[in-house]
Amino acid sequence: MNLIADIAIIPLGVGNSLSPYVAACERVLREAGLKTQLHANGTNVEGDWDEVMAALKRCHEVLHEMGAPRVATNMRLGTRTDKAQTMNDKIKSVEQKLDAQ
Amino acid sequence: MNLIADIAIIPLGVGNSLSPYVAACERVLREAGLKTQLHANGTNVEGDWDEVMAALKRCHEVLHEMGAPRVATNMRLGTRTDKAQTMNDKIKSVEQKLDAQ
Amino acid sequence: MNLIADIAIIPLGVGNSLSPYVAACERVLREAGLKTQLHANGTNVEGDWDEVMAALKRCHEVLHEMGAPRVATNMRLGTRTDKAQTMNDKIKSVEQKLDAQ
Amino acid sequence: MNLIADIAIIPLGVGNSLSPYVAACERVLREAGLKTQLHANGTNVEGDWDEVMAALKRCHEVLHEMGAPRVATNMRLGTRTDKAQTMNDKIKSVEQKLDAQ
Repeated sequence: MNLIADIAIIPLGVGNSLSPYVAACERVLREAGLKTQLHANGTNVEGDWDEVMAALKRCHEVLHEMGAPRVATNMRLGTRTDKAQTMNDKIKSVEQKLDAQ
Repeated sequence: MNLIADIAIIPLGVGNSLSPYVAACERVLREAGLKTQLHANGTNVEGDWDEVMAALKRCHEVLHEMGAPRVATNMRLGTRTDKAQTMNDKIKSVEQKLDAQ
Repeated sequence: MNLIADIAIIPLGVGNSLSPYVAACERVLREAGLKTQLHANGTNVEGDWDEVMAALKRCHEVLHEMGAPRVATNMRLGTRTDKAQTMNDKIKSVEQKLDAQ
Repeated sequence: MNLIADIAIIPLGVGNSLSPYVAACERVLREAGLKTQLHANGTNVEGDWDEVMAALKRCHEVLHEMGAPRVATNMRLGTRTDKAQTMNDKIKSVEQKLDAQ
């Protein structure tokens, strides 16, 4: 089952500079061979359900290893059976409607 | 790794009555032996990371089998290494602060 | 426009005990006269759109006043025009499907 | 109070092609003069709290006017008092950590 997800990971108890932790998770996702698109409030990722979820678990483990006593993630997940769709397809689909106005 | 999660699952393309689908996922979570607390905008669940995630995947599969061409989930996940904490601990912790005002 | 929302507020840069901050926001919501239902991963709130949003803004302000340099909220919002529905209606609707199994 | 938000809006009861509705909300945000960055699972927006929230309310109204009986939004909100920060600052901050590896 293919999954498009949007992961916003927040380490707690490590001060208010989160970017080293967000970067660490981004590296985990990329090293897992997943396509990622970093954005201002999270990172979008596309791949096989099990591979995305294994990488997300690894992100939590890595952030704990970096010293975060708590890790909170907010995640959006989308699966569909009617057609194949990539992250770029989703963006293009909205942009076409914007252009067609 | 223990996980406390909040799952809000939305089937798309099936009209605007979602409760049969939400109930189907709730049954999946309960049958997996996970502790759940249904609330107005999702369901909280507590358990081993892998077991929660396996049940969530099964929720997506079941909703597709029920006819939903798309399934969108919004999920909050929390892990911590500093202490053990249950869902009820989290609620009590806030209620104590409210009472102590 | 009536709104049912689920608010999960996280102060950053204040350590990893969040309950005093979550309780402060809960008080703001209650003092605004809104119906709230605290749960393990947030609080559900029901009321007029503008009143809920004014209270949420006040939550961010209060947490900053308490010393949090950053405040991150994850929120689910639902509006509907087909029928009136309360938070309890939403829960009952799912529970009926569970009982009817 | 400046706000950086990530808005994922889902109309329910209108089938499974959501892009016309997402595009309609994107137009509302842009016409409000807000900076937006569309991504695969939502749109990031930056601006004054009240202006962002007024535009979000208008998005719900517009989607109802387009025929959606229910509208569900998942939103991430971030405010900070320690320093000014734009959406691009947030992305650059993570990218610098990735490059520095």
